[in-house]
Amino acid sequence: MAPKYAPSLRSRLAPFLLFLQIGFVVVYYFYIEIESNVNGIKFSNFYPVFQDLNVVVFLGFGFLSTFLVRYGFSGSGFNLLIAVIGTQWALLLNGFESWYYRGKIRIDLNSLVVAEMCTASVLISIGAVQGKTNPVHLILMALLEVFGFVLNEWLLQTLLPVRQLNFIMVLHIFGAFFGLVLTWILCRTESFQGFEKEKLDRKTGLFSMLGTVFLWMFWPSFNSILMEERRLSAVCSTYLALAVCAVASVALSVLSSPKGKAHFQSCILAGGVAVGVSMPAIRYPWEAMTTGLAAAAVSTVGFQYLKVNHMLFAFECHDTCSVLSTHGLPGLLGWLIQLVLQIQQCDDHTMAIRFAVFHIDALLITLATSLTMGFLTGVLLKWDIWRPPQDKKCFDDQAFWKFEHLAVRK
Amino acid sequence: MAPKYAPSLRSRLAPFLLFLQIGFVVVYYFYIEIESNVNGIKFSNFYPVFQDLNVVVFLGFGFLSTFLVRYGFSGSGFNLLIAVIGTQWALLLNGFESWYYRGKIRIDLNSLVVAEMCTASVLISIGAVQGKTNPVHLILMALLEVFGFVLNEWLLQTLLPVRQLNFIMVLHIFGAFFGLVLTWILCRTESFQGFEKEKLDRKTGLFSMLGTVFLWMFWPSFNSILMEERRLSAVCSTYLALAVCAVASVALSVLSSPKGKAHFQSCILAGGVAVGVSMPAIRYPWEAMTTGLAAAAVSTVGFQYLKVNHMLFAFECHDTCSVLSTHGLPGLLGWLIQLVLQIQQCDDHTMAIRFAVFHIDALLITLATSLTMGFLTGVLLKWDIWRPPQDKKCFDDQAFWKFEHLAVRK
Amino acid sequence: MAPKYAPSLRSRLAPFLLFLQIGFVVVYYFYIEIESNVNGIKFSNFYPVFQDLNVVVFLGFGFLSTFLVRYGFSGSGFNLLIAVIGTQWALLLNGFESWYYRGKIRIDLNSLVVAEMCTASVLISIGAVQGKTNPVHLILMALLEVFGFVLNEWLLQTLLPVRQLNFIMVLHIFGAFFGLVLTWILCRTESFQGFEKEKLDRKTGLFSMLGTVFLWMFWPSFNSILMEERRLSAVCSTYLALAVCAVASVALSVLSSPKGKAHFQSCILAGGVAVGVSMPAIRYPWEAMTTGLAAAAVSTVGFQYLKVNHMLFAFECHDTCSVLSTHGLPGLLGWLIQLVLQIQQCDDHTMAIRFAVFHIDALLITLATSLTMGFLTGVLLKWDIWRPPQDKKCFDDQAFWKFEHLAVRK
Repeated sequence: MAPKYAPSLRSRLAPFLLFLQIGFVVVYYFYIEIESNVNGIKFSNFYPVFQDLNVVVFLGFGFLSTFLVRYGFSGSGFNLLIAVIGTQWALLLNGFESWYYRGKIRIDLNSLVVAEMCTASVLISIGAVQGKTNPVHLILMALLEVFGFVLNEWLLQTLLPVRQLNFIMVLHIFGAFFGLVLTWILCRTESFQGFEKEKLDRKTGLFSMLGTVFLWMFWPSFNSILMEERRLSAVCSTYLALAVCAVASVALSVLSSPKGKAHFQSCILAGGVAVGVSMPAIRYPWEAMTTGLAAAAVSTVGFQYLKVNHMLFAFECHDTCSVLSTHGLPGLLGWLIQLVLQIQQCDDHTMAIRFAVFHIDALLITLATSLTMGFLTGVLLKWDIWRPPQDKKCFDDQAFWKFEHLAVRK
Repeated sequence: MAPKYAPSLRSRLAPFLLFLQIGFVVVYYFYIEIESNVNGIKFSNFYPVFQDLNVVVFLGFGFLSTFLVRYGFSGSGFNLLIAVIGTQWALLLNGFESWYYRGKIRIDLNSLVVAEMCTASVLISIGAVQGKTNPVHLILMALLEVFGFVLNEWLLQTLLPVRQLNFIMVLHIFGAFFGLVLTWILCRTESFQGFEKEKLDRKTGLFSMLGTVFLWMFWPSFNSILMEERRLSAVCSTYLALAVCAVASVALSVLSSPKGKAHFQSCILAGGVAVGVSMPAIRYPWEAMTTGLAAAAVSTVGFQYLKVNHMLFAFECHDTCSVLSTHGLPGLLGWLIQLVLQIQQCDDHTMAIRFAVFHIDALLITLATSLTMGFLTGVLLKWDIWRPPQDKKCFDDQAFWKFEHLAVRK
Repeated sequence: MAPKYAPSLRSRLAPFLLFLQIGFVVVYYFYIEIESNVNGIKFSNFYPVFQDLNVVVFLGFGFLSTFLVRYGFSGSGFNLLIAVIGTQWALLLNGFESWYYRGKIRIDLNSLVVAEMCTASVLISIGAVQGKTNPVHLILMALLEVFGFVLNEWLLQTLLPVRQLNFIMVLHIFGAFFGLVLTWILCRTESFQGFEKEKLDRKTGLFSMLGTVFLWMFWPSFNSILMEERRLSAVCSTYLALAVCAVASVALSVLSSPKGKAHFQSCILAGGVAVGVSMPAIRYPWEAMTTGLAAAAVSTVGFQYLKVNHMLFAFECHDTCSVLSTHGLPGLLGWLIQLVLQIQQCDDHTMAIRFAVFHIDALLITLATSLTMGFLTGVLLKWDIWRPPQDKKCFDDQAFWKFEHLAVRK
């Protein structure tokens, strides 16, 4: 007979977290200092966008996954936990070079932003394994994925003579494929019958809608935050792509549903993903809008047909939050659109080929690192020592959170 | 026997949306470009207020109407859909003059803001017909109302030698009366017995409270966003008017309820509406506060007595979100206060009369355009070809949204 | 037999609110004007932080206490009501000096911010008496507490030759101890058996999580808003302290729970409180992080062991929102950390002793004023004339709010 309660994480989670956090404090004691030479006006101008990013990372990604009726607390709570661990870890790894040459790492708003962007790729991956993992899994995953992400960045900058890294591209594609490999390795037989507690209801759906709307509104900030120039263009392009994507998602989901019903929650963000990835090549509004339209098509089709039929049964890959159709496919689409547009914009034939080679190499390196790291992480997480939740306890807040005054009858 | 399911919109909604959206992309391809000459500091200073407006438009108006227990998804989802369609359409219509003279329309943050303000009047009107329409209705309404709004703007600027249009005034009054005429024409007999599914419960009420609080907090941004000067004054005035209005709404709703219970959700915004409309004439804090007090009185009385007794039974006008008492009456009140204050401030008798004539004309033109466009839209929407939801399917998300994993027993 | 309905507040609340509000308008008419000499760039740079503070005050504190299943409307609604009354009152009291010398009080964004910070201490206190009071109590409390807060400020600046007041310290400590004394005096026998309606459920818990996440995200703005310099340092320190605190709260709550379950909602804010109080002495990231770690420890232990066992049974003090462990203890801890760090940073022995004396005096004066004002307020509120809710009607929205279309069966 299966045990009645989920295995207690007391002996695993608490020491691990304390060890990690005290370790961070010690390392920060020796190596981290806050930038003292601050330009007041630049700070004031950047601060609101930094707060928009916080809303995207801590609130948006967290509440996006509250649609699961019994997993809302874990969805939003673990998101916050992983985000802060990942950010502290990424601050260290990103400062490695500075530490190597100067012995100290100086942080400012910009380093916090870059660190949160690295962490965002972890939050994307979590979407794929949501509900089937415990917090110990998620923390290990965060540490390894941020490491992989920074490694991939280093590889790209070392192997390819690119002047500017397309951070947004790496973030979505790395995050999505890492998560997919991971969920493929962690696949359980229960996935095929459907988990007992993987359900949504109206009200938790509204929380998820709230998270989606916040992500949707602040996506222009997310796409433009690391740009020094052309910020207006990035904001307007993202805005238009998201607008088109919202309209097209409704149209296409109604068209592909036999009863003519709509669904748009995860798909309306696809436009922002695709346009963010292809941003360096976007010059005109119609390019952004067409990208949004294509992303909506890819994402809606992916959501309707790939998720259950192909992803689950053909590839044994249970993707809780449809990471493939929200980040993976639109990311690849954006990559493709950037390729086509950039080649068109090149006057010179040699330049075009040169660009294409680098662009394709960047994708291949990112995919390779992502899949390798995802595979290694998956193998590590399969180990029983981390006490994975039993099938019946998947998607259940009760296993992790204390509800003291919880009403007996809901 | 009535059909069991709501009529499927597949054959109406999807082609209509796709046609519209692809049409927009094509028109944007030929005529729209993004402003390239950007002042970085001005952009950075304006961007946070632009995001506040987005929160008001996409989140605030959307979640305001989630109080309907079975209509939360539609309330927030259709709001987003209509807002993005309306904004794309308004960008084109507002750029008509620029297109006429230069052949191209250049967009920047400011044009997005103006377009969203036009759309806001549609979102206000939707409040009146919420739950009794399907998305096809709402899209048609958005297209016609934005057209009417821009036409009204053009009429005001052509017929009256006003230098500056009171955008906020037009927005609330146009939106409210357009919506009221529309709901009057679309009135059904079912309205008199009450719709079966027009209910609220505690938790959806909290979502609505959330939307209200966001609107309330960012209303100072909404009222000051189009002002070049006197922004501090606009922010402080709106803040104080909203504060007074919140206190007075509680007091008056308690006073007018036999059991001494409070209600303030829609009324606390009335102060912001009234003070926004009369802003050009507001010089001192007490003027703003008195406006807030008067708006609370008008709005609370309107909500308590007009809504059911007079609006519904006398005028056959079912106003779901109390648009009359939230936007219509406070808008008229603000107009009146501006009139009185401006006349007082005029030193010259002739100037005062001149101003009064223009001010009254502006209202009459706005009301006339609003009522005419609302009437025409209503006649168009009454057509059965758009497949209106049956009475039993009004206020029901199930008719439009797919809930895949929905728990069978809630 | 106990009366079936809660006593109606119609004859108390409505006249009181109207009298108060009209009084404010009259006083504002004579003495308040809006600053006309505005620096446009400074305004634009400050405005987004002002809006962040509004989110903290109106949304964050309001939704933090929506976890009570039947008290969500009151939690968020009364919070807004009290916040606007307190702010109007604080604007007057803070401007007393200016009125005395110039006959007029000029308000700008900065005075609104200071007034909201005074009000924040009231919102903290309300956490302790949440659910066991009616709105008349809360308004009286707001008036007296803001008066006490301003009095305390004046005492500190008059008695101690400190150049800069530690506003954040006063705010948390004054608010927490005021609330605790108040709830001690208002203690009912029912508290010991537990109130019938003091329950939470999953969905209201998610609303509370939403409020917590907003507070958590915008806490860096809250801590840095009154600083002219070193704002980057304040933002980074608060960010890191909050991050560490979130991780440590999960670890410690899992460790101290027999089944290894986590709880972090109120504790993750403790790091922000402690680091805000000790901010003037924080120079390095590790100091902020250690403060966050210590605050998490104090807060988690306080929440787990003090609340029910000691606070309630030993001190007869029913603290609904755990104000002691969220604001009181972390505030004291921050005070202590500032003392230690400042003494270490002093080169001179005399300076260190001088600082220590002032620092200890500041705490003692604040505690004395807080406890005295709390006591006096408590004695006033115990009077039956204010119609306190019966035990069975505590924690119940139905007593105060009208739910017109409320579904009969939920």
